[in-house]
Amino acid sequence: MSTQAAPLTPISLKDGPSADATLARCRELVEPALRKAVQGLHPGPGRIASHAFGWCDADGTPSSGGGGKGVRPALAVLGTEAVGANADVAVPAAVAIELIHTFSLMHDDIMDGDERRRHRDSAWKAFGTGPAVLAGDALFALAVRTLAEAGGTGGGAAVHQLAVMMGELVHGQADDVLFESRPWSGPGSVSPAEYRAMAVRKTGALLGCATALGPVLAGAPPLLTDALARAGREWGLAFQAVDDVLGIWGDPAVTGKPVHSDLRRGKKTLPVLGAIAMDPSLGPRLDRLLTVNPDEAAVRRAADLVEEAGGRAYALRDARTRVATARDHLRAVPLAGRHVDELVALSQLLLDRRV
Amino acid sequence: MSTQAAPLTPISLKDGPSADATLARCRELVEPALRKAVQGLHPGPGRIASHAFGWCDADGTPSSGGGGKGVRPALAVLGTEAVGANADVAVPAAVAIELIHTFSLMHDDIMDGDERRRHRDSAWKAFGTGPAVLAGDALFALAVRTLAEAGGTGGGAAVHQLAVMMGELVHGQADDVLFESRPWSGPGSVSPAEYRAMAVRKTGALLGCATALGPVLAGAPPLLTDALARAGREWGLAFQAVDDVLGIWGDPAVTGKPVHSDLRRGKKTLPVLGAIAMDPSLGPRLDRLLTVNPDEAAVRRAADLVEEAGGRAYALRDARTRVATARDHLRAVPLAGRHVDELVALSQLLLDRRV
Repeated sequence: MSTQAAPLTPISLKDGPSADATLARCRELVEPALRKAVQGLHPGPGRIASHAFGWCDADGTPSSGGGGKGVRPALAVLGTEAVGANADVAVPAAVAIELIHTFSLMHDDIMDGDERRRHRDSAWKAFGTGPAVLAGDALFALAVRTLAEAGGTGGGAAVHQLAVMMGELVHGQADDVLFESRPWSGPGSVSPAEYRAMAVRKTGALLGCATALGPVLAGAPPLLTDALARAGREWGLAFQAVDDVLGIWGDPAVTGKPVHSDLRRGKKTLPVLGAIAMDPSLGPRLDRLLTVNPDEAAVRRAADLVEEAGGRAYALRDARTRVATARDHLRAVPLAGRHVDELVALSQLLLDRRV
Repeated sequence: MSTQAAPLTPISLKDGPSADATLARCRELVEPALRKAVQGLHPGPGRIASHAFGWCDADGTPSSGGGGKGVRPALAVLGTEAVGANADVAVPAAVAIELIHTFSLMHDDIMDGDERRRHRDSAWKAFGTGPAVLAGDALFALAVRTLAEAGGTGGGAAVHQLAVMMGELVHGQADDVLFESRPWSGPGSVSPAEYRAMAVRKTGALLGCATALGPVLAGAPPLLTDALARAGREWGLAFQAVDDVLGIWGDPAVTGKPVHSDLRRGKKTLPVLGAIAMDPSLGPRLDRLLTVNPDEAAVRRAADLVEEAGGRAYALRDARTRVATARDHLRAVPLAGRHVDELVALSQLLLDRRV
């Protein structure tokens, strides 16, 4: 381990592949199967899905570059390789995970009223709410089917794990939405522990499942699949912490989301909860500033107060700690070192990302 | 077989249990497990689900009688008993099917803009679109989880069958919505064959799966599960044909839906397509009457034209034929006669129902 490494740069990977190369390799392995699965959908939901994956514009014209980075399917591939199984085994798991991820973005954007996603209209904005609901359902069904057809030693356990994760995802999203109407101070306020329980379901469950699902499918021993799942959950919490920071201070031109939208809607995020934990007088001040239709000046003032109280640094510190904890989970069990290095390098992307 | 039986009354069931008694027996078996599963949900989606099942009002006050009749879970129980397996084996299948049925009503009501369901506000109307999307997702995830946890000989096959059915459901719903914008005549019109392909997915798939899923879970031979699935699909088509008739001529006070709503929105239904097949001059007339924001007089005139051309009788005849075909499928294979009788008696409800 290099002691010279800066806190946000990869550790002990001088000679390993870059995260970008890893993402490209995994994408090459997974994308043909993902495209094939989506091509089997009804053309209506199929086009909405293709738009969400960045494969076409809203009118169906082929395009590229509008999808996600493919971190989750890459975790599925690397997790599988780390337990010594062939990467091909991971493909149905990676496809199922990417389908579920896209389903959840599609439905969450409806619930949150988010009009933009990855610099383009969100599905409901481009195609209407009803069609976006249906396209999400189509992706969900396709994910279960893809995994159910994978068969193999751990087929049943993998489907069960996916279903449990889906329940957690819904539970976390329900809490996230409910938290918006709770105050920043007083007896009804959201504690950091409640926030973490929400975030580990809303974001951690999917990343944990992504990392462990291929290994479960391959029939890997619980010692290994549990460590991978735990690491994935930590990455999910780190991802959410950085997402929360970007939701307040991110550059709208880069994130593609309106500035300060999380504060304006009362979303309970880690920088704010961390700031309040360090300076309890902040809670009542935020309630006064943000409760009733705050104007832009009030929201900007709230963001400044949170930053001054150290909330931004708190969330980023939390993210770094979680990425380090995840690495420790992986290094404590006999996994293939090279692929653990790739996983660790990939997890750094969660900290360094701007979108 | 009694030759005196009127076409719409049960056949050869003089001494068998009534459909109502069968529904009550199956409900008693399935409902505790269904309630237990739903109680495990997050309280937000959980209350929306309880409202949809008729267990509480929108404000959470316990109530009763607002749910469905429970035909689908009863099919799961009877199908299982018909292959000689213990009814207990059917419970997770019956629960999964009822969860999926309720999920699909919840999301379909959003897509169709239907404000009423079973004489109460639909989920999106009572709780908002976002919460209804999420509650539907919660039921979907819970269905997969319930079945995945059932285990047993046919656990993997049952989950696969559920996932395939879900894909069909989405495909059928997508077609149904797309068909609304197609004309009643000319090259873009919907043929009866296209209608049937839509209806067998949208409605037949779920009833086919309901009838075969318990037997699949119990590891019954394909000869039997295929016959049960085929019978269920026929019942689904019969159900849809009667639903189509009620959607035009049903009493709004009984159905709880606005009169003529299917015609007003251009929904392609069997009575109309049947009428046009018998009298092709009807298509252009309906296009003139219904295409641009039809008023109530135009819609009533259209309903009268379809009735005069024999469309209503056509759809009801189709429903009766399908119920008879289903009975033949069941009687062609070695199933337990008493339970086949119960299935046949239950299927008569699809013809006799008014809501």
